[in-house]
Amino acid sequence: MSEINQSVNEKIKKIIEEMTLEEKVSMIHGNGLFRTEAVERLDIPALTMSDGPMGVRKDYKNDKWEDMGNTYDYATYFPSNMALASTWNPDRAYEFGISIGSEARARGKDVILGPGINIIRTPLCGRNFEYMSEDPHLISKMAVPFIKGVQTKDTAACVKHFAANNQEYERLNINVEMDDRALNEIYLPGFKAAVEEGNSYTIMGAYNRLRGEHCCESDYLLNDVLRKQWGYDGVVISDWGAVHNTETAARYGADIEMNVTDNFNEYFLADPLIEKVKAGLIDEKFIDEKVERILKLMFKLNVFSEKRVRGSYNTLDHREAALNIARESIVLLKNHDNLLPLNDDKVKSLAVIGENADKQHSNGGGSAEIKALYEYTPLMGLKMRLGGNTKIQYAKGYSKDEALKAELLNEAVNLAKSSDEVIIVVGLDHDFDVEGKDREDLTLPYNQDELVKAVLEVKPDAIVVNISGSPICMEQWINEAKAVVHSFYAGMEGGYALAEVLFGNVNPSGKLPVTFPKELSDSPAHCIGDFPGVETVEYKESIFVGYRYFDTKDIEPRFEFGHGLSYTKFEYSDLTIIVDSSEEINIELSFNITNTGGTAGAEIAQVYVSDLESSLVRPKKELKAFKKVFLEIGETKLVTLRLNKEDLSFYNDKENKWVCEAGEFKLLVGSSSSDIKLDKVFTI
Amino acid sequence: MSEINQSVNEKIKKIIEEMTLEEKVSMIHGNGLFRTEAVERLDIPALTMSDGPMGVRKDYKNDKWEDMGNTYDYATYFPSNMALASTWNPDRAYEFGISIGSEARARGKDVILGPGINIIRTPLCGRNFEYMSEDPHLISKMAVPFIKGVQTKDTAACVKHFAANNQEYERLNINVEMDDRALNEIYLPGFKAAVEEGNSYTIMGAYNRLRGEHCCESDYLLNDVLRKQWGYDGVVISDWGAVHNTETAARYGADIEMNVTDNFNEYFLADPLIEKVKAGLIDEKFIDEKVERILKLMFKLNVFSEKRVRGSYNTLDHREAALNIARESIVLLKNHDNLLPLNDDKVKSLAVIGENADKQHSNGGGSAEIKALYEYTPLMGLKMRLGGNTKIQYAKGYSKDEALKAELLNEAVNLAKSSDEVIIVVGLDHDFDVEGKDREDLTLPYNQDELVKAVLEVKPDAIVVNISGSPICMEQWINEAKAVVHSFYAGMEGGYALAEVLFGNVNPSGKLPVTFPKELSDSPAHCIGDFPGVETVEYKESIFVGYRYFDTKDIEPRFEFGHGLSYTKFEYSDLTIIVDSSEEINIELSFNITNTGGTAGAEIAQVYVSDLESSLVRPKKELKAFKKVFLEIGETKLVTLRLNKEDLSFYNDKENKWVCEAGEFKLLVGSSSSDIKLDKVFTI
Repeated sequence: MSEINQSVNEKIKKIIEEMTLEEKVSMIHGNGLFRTEAVERLDIPALTMSDGPMGVRKDYKNDKWEDMGNTYDYATYFPSNMALASTWNPDRAYEFGISIGSEARARGKDVILGPGINIIRTPLCGRNFEYMSEDPHLISKMAVPFIKGVQTKDTAACVKHFAANNQEYERLNINVEMDDRALNEIYLPGFKAAVEEGNSYTIMGAYNRLRGEHCCESDYLLNDVLRKQWGYDGVVISDWGAVHNTETAARYGADIEMNVTDNFNEYFLADPLIEKVKAGLIDEKFIDEKVERILKLMFKLNVFSEKRVRGSYNTLDHREAALNIARESIVLLKNHDNLLPLNDDKVKSLAVIGENADKQHSNGGGSAEIKALYEYTPLMGLKMRLGGNTKIQYAKGYSKDEALKAELLNEAVNLAKSSDEVIIVVGLDHDFDVEGKDREDLTLPYNQDELVKAVLEVKPDAIVVNISGSPICMEQWINEAKAVVHSFYAGMEGGYALAEVLFGNVNPSGKLPVTFPKELSDSPAHCIGDFPGVETVEYKESIFVGYRYFDTKDIEPRFEFGHGLSYTKFEYSDLTIIVDSSEEINIELSFNITNTGGTAGAEIAQVYVSDLESSLVRPKKELKAFKKVFLEIGETKLVTLRLNKEDLSFYNDKENKWVCEAGEFKLLVGSSSSDIKLDKVFTI
Repeated sequence: MSEINQSVNEKIKKIIEEMTLEEKVSMIHGNGLFRTEAVERLDIPALTMSDGPMGVRKDYKNDKWEDMGNTYDYATYFPSNMALASTWNPDRAYEFGISIGSEARARGKDVILGPGINIIRTPLCGRNFEYMSEDPHLISKMAVPFIKGVQTKDTAACVKHFAANNQEYERLNINVEMDDRALNEIYLPGFKAAVEEGNSYTIMGAYNRLRGEHCCESDYLLNDVLRKQWGYDGVVISDWGAVHNTETAARYGADIEMNVTDNFNEYFLADPLIEKVKAGLIDEKFIDEKVERILKLMFKLNVFSEKRVRGSYNTLDHREAALNIARESIVLLKNHDNLLPLNDDKVKSLAVIGENADKQHSNGGGSAEIKALYEYTPLMGLKMRLGGNTKIQYAKGYSKDEALKAELLNEAVNLAKSSDEVIIVVGLDHDFDVEGKDREDLTLPYNQDELVKAVLEVKPDAIVVNISGSPICMEQWINEAKAVVHSFYAGMEGGYALAEVLFGNVNPSGKLPVTFPKELSDSPAHCIGDFPGVETVEYKESIFVGYRYFDTKDIEPRFEFGHGLSYTKFEYSDLTIIVDSSEEINIELSFNITNTGGTAGAEIAQVYVSDLESSLVRPKKELKAFKKVFLEIGETKLVTLRLNKEDLSFYNDKENKWVCEAGEFKLLVGSSSSDIKLDKVFTI
């Protein structure tokens, strides 16, 4: 990044002075589906963008949603943002960022449209797989290194979608209403961290409305919060088609209007804007401000420099990053009788059942689709991993085609009966986890519950693997299933990583970044709040999102936030807390974790804060720190973490400010949000 | 490998005693296109095979040449055997072997049909790309570690095609005639090394006839030479359709008859054999011997053991092996004015011209085809490598379609004119380098010569890259081209490795394993010997194959055997020779190589022996040792090599034995077969 110093500011000023109104306007709206226009007269190139966040999308024609048909736009297909979040490992997020930033740079893109960090308010949202978590702390800790990684490659991250884009239903117009506490405590912190700590060069304005205003025309969101409160000097890019009004957008809206249509000159920030400026209805200074921000971005990206970093794509490094993220993302939900890992020497015949075992997911999901260089399915991963000594047979088990149901079920059950071991791979696909629509319920589609039950009946030791981008309901068979593994869409190497986990080459270390409820009706957005709303959706559940709700209301989820088992055992001990509240509040906490089991492995220690005395109701506990610790057999590591005043505060919406009230707090250290291992009360 | 000890031999004897004639016969012929039959009653599995040698071929239906359509038989596409040989690095050959052996094992194959080691007698042979060299020493040194690598994975190598399968024309019946010197000095040593040093568990009998006998029914070749002289106890597998007679094949022919047709029971070693045995015309002991060898093979492969090694496929390791082989395989033929490497900071616009720049080769060539997991073309490799700062534009330049000629040429020339730098990628493809037919001449097809000339005229600094599996004629433009790079088909990572070489991330270190003649008429098989022959092809050039001919007859080739430039310079010095002929002859030679240039790099030092006094005519020099040495800038390494009596000997066909005649020899140490840096005479 080149420093935006005085001389650059002067250069920018001069450039703007030299520009015609038409040239300026050409820089602030799409003149291609993924680019603005260049001002060749002044050697200003177009700003180019590519969809993320699972990789750099294939090249489209400039003005048509048609594949260019290039042979060279295959790309690394990285794990989904949700899979990344389930690693709870900021190092992996940084590697992800570096890799995808490099791929974007190499493909000639200035901006990669990611990461996606909207809060998982409901398990039904179609784009959950592109987001990270229900918890703003986890989001922040994963999004910041992702963004920093991207931007080491002179590529801009574009954190999205700002803000409160938590559902797909009527996404272009739905109005979101929530109280100030929810906004400040839940829905904004990830974006604040992305901007303040991550220094995200760009941010994407969301489709939806918030408190009546479209996000891309919201003075409150873009100016009061983003630019004034957070000091943001980057570029706001509208979601594709999220601008609706020339005047509001010009005055306090997005800096760049993008859309999905090819009438580029008719965009709100195109000819209509020129006309209004010429008619004296809009001050040209608003346009100058946007152009200034865009030029600043270009300087940050070294667009005008000989020193702009080169990228690369599809390298071994990037594939290794994709594999390592996938390995750490897989979550072991249940493992009765230590059924897993399987022993490859003992499994002479293996039945692999379920369409998701042989299904590639890369080319679906909407804008997140990837023209993957390759993608290993679980079936291929198992074949790769088992390497010749195990007879692997596959049965599809279920299908979209209702007419095949009985036949496929029968075939699967027969295969299961005649095999040493059975792995059932069920879940969703991008017909469900997809941009533009939400799911209708938590149920597994295509009679998969029936399949799982039937197979478990003949093979009680069958392993169940679920692949989906959101929680699903497992109630019909979860008590019968002894071992259950979950994988979010885990990228091109995901099928192999899964096989490594199932057969013990990789000790699972992922933890759920989202609560898996037993039933949809247990979910706060559904039992308290509106969903999906009519014109307006009201977040009546307020701050009680995810585990904040389940914990506080004592509703047992199927699998709690932060849950994830290991093939080894960890013991926690010796929690000490040092509270220094002489000037600022500084809390240093430390504890030991010991690997007392028989396998090397990683534990994600989670630190929750519970405010025991508070003037406003607070969640029972809130995640405020975590650490992923890798431990050899028998090894003990001392974990030291720090909390500060902010970590004890809540947003007092009567006084419109964050407050930290004196009194007693409890610090809880756990292996999940429910499995608390150590706790200690302290007083401020 | 399990030791074939007494107890195993007894087990085998017992098994054979228990078998019916029909069961035995079912083991010695194909009962699927790539397998024999299992004897389930005795728990003997089928023996399964897969085409190589560039990877494990996709799965075919048992009895039809139809793709199974599996989603999981994508495989690592390794560099061709010729590319491997051009690395002159036995370590790379060992890695290749380990990797492909592991892939075969993982895909459930017992035998991988490779390496291909037939001598490159003519540049026109369609399968040259599957073979290694014109020189038996280089072949031996590369084939042995390849085979050893494969067999670490409890997979059998199948060195092929035994013997003298040096052309595709009339390959099923052509009769090869050559003198005993040629056979013993040139055409057999690679197979001898494969068997004696490499311990190749299987060997493939060739299609052609040798001295009137079909190779798969040749008592001389299979019994006198292979089993008696060389002590081979492995299995001879016929090429697919290379058996022609039940009695000769049964008595002294291949152990397993394979074919391309689905009438498995009608194979010569199937029902017809059973009938003849029952009729008392063939002794059952011949069948027992074959079955014994096959069972021994199965024990070697740990087929009956719990301990059989597991394989894997498509792993990062295998891709890295493919990349490293490709990197070392590329040969810098010419580099006037140090035009290469290109400087990525200076190349703002790059024209990439030629169909071979954007062509994938994996799925062609006949049985060597691979369902590649992916394959980078040179164009994609350049895009990957140049990473955003260079504008890369592509013009096809030439095409099979004659009608497009003028248009494509014009487009290419215009693009070349308007670009900073130009890379022309020409060559052959698997319409030419293909099983089943030979090329008609050395000329580049599709008017490529015209294209190269036209581009060089407007852009004299254009880089020419040739991709082919055999030498091509460059005479129309070689004097105008300043920089020329050659790549044999270099596998899935080849396009990226090429880009790394062109832009200096990789310092080229490949050397030609075959002479590039100026014209076809300079080639010994064409100016002295027969080619392709009518019914019989007579190798009248005898031992004067490749550089043995060009050197001895003082014919200047375009690029000599062993030629390959580097971006750095190497100096040779201090040759010392210690001759110990007290008992055996032992010669220790040593010399220094210093990297005197400005780049780290690898040199392949070649040691040739010249017999200065001999009763029979000998080649001017013959390769007897080589060493690939990696040197940092300024580094000097002492290279020590050893020669023995065999390295000084020739085959005296009057006395039918190898002889080492006393007298003077000259030892030549060079950077190629022509570029001799040091020499010394010594006396035996």
